[in-house]
Amino acid sequence: MIDPASLPGRPCAVAAALELVGERWALLAVREISFGNHRFNQIARNTGAPRDRLAARLKALVEAGVLVREDGYHLTQAGRELSPVLWALLDWGSKWAVAQPTIRLRHHHDHDLRPRSVCTECGEEVGPGEITPVSTVEGWGLAGPGETS
Amino acid sequence: MIDPASLPGRPCAVAAALELVGERWALLAVREISFGNHRFNQIARNTGAPRDRLAARLKALVEAGVLVREDGYHLTQAGRELSPVLWALLDWGSKWAVAQPTIRLRHHHDHDLRPRSVCTECGEEVGPGEITPVSTVEGWGLAGPGETS
Repeated sequence: MIDPASLPGRPCAVAAALELVGERWALLAVREISFGNHRFNQIARNTGAPRDRLAARLKALVEAGVLVREDGYHLTQAGRELSPVLWALLDWGSKWAVAQPTIRLRHHHDHDLRPRSVCTECGEEVGPGEITPVSTVEGWGLAGPGETS
Repeated sequence: MIDPASLPGRPCAVAAALELVGERWALLAVREISFGNHRFNQIARNTGAPRDRLAARLKALVEAGVLVREDGYHLTQAGRELSPVLWALLDWGSKWAVAQPTIRLRHHHDHDLRPRSVCTECGEEVGPGEITPVSTVEGWGLAGPGETS
């Protein structure tokens, strides 16, 4: 766990999440391990990460509780729960970053799908602009420090 | 658009997405702009990003089509559609990276919610481990180059 007040800027769980996994090689390593590639050499080849940076990043992910190292690298529960982050990046990237899809996601083996977000209270699909964030940190409103949201 | 074959490792929309927005200050800048903070000084203060790195990152985001600079920085459609990535990071970070939530998301102003992913084909909620990725890139299977998935 990270004390958000120890981070620069707004104390925020997004910043804390990025402190743990917000580096390209970290999320790509999680992608590879979720694909069943558990060996350092496989992860290095398939991410294209420089080996020294990858080794440091994997060590940090083990320390952060996202991976365990035991006969290769494996996802912990925290690591498995990063899936929605990877799905959201894949969905966004498939639309805005590449011309052709590179990975398709299948559900129940024959549903070719793009995940959609729904509200857990009303079950409605939630789009950008339909969510209102509310700051719960004393002294930090949405506009910044010293403001209330 | 990025040619995924120009990136190191597996040609993948996740890697392409991270090439565009996979840097901590990039996603935190998008967070601040989505909160209505459009000025460089606001973004710098609320992200805590070093000003020179932030300036370079905002310029890259404008070039990538995620932001427009027009009387401050604003999200394009591509930028607005990053919301599910930020929601997923907020959800994960609130559980695994911080002890206390820092931002709550409200839907319809009174639904205090955590977004959940559903399959667009069957409408079922999708959890980690229920998705099977399939590589659609010639010569790259899930296990790596030269494999078929």
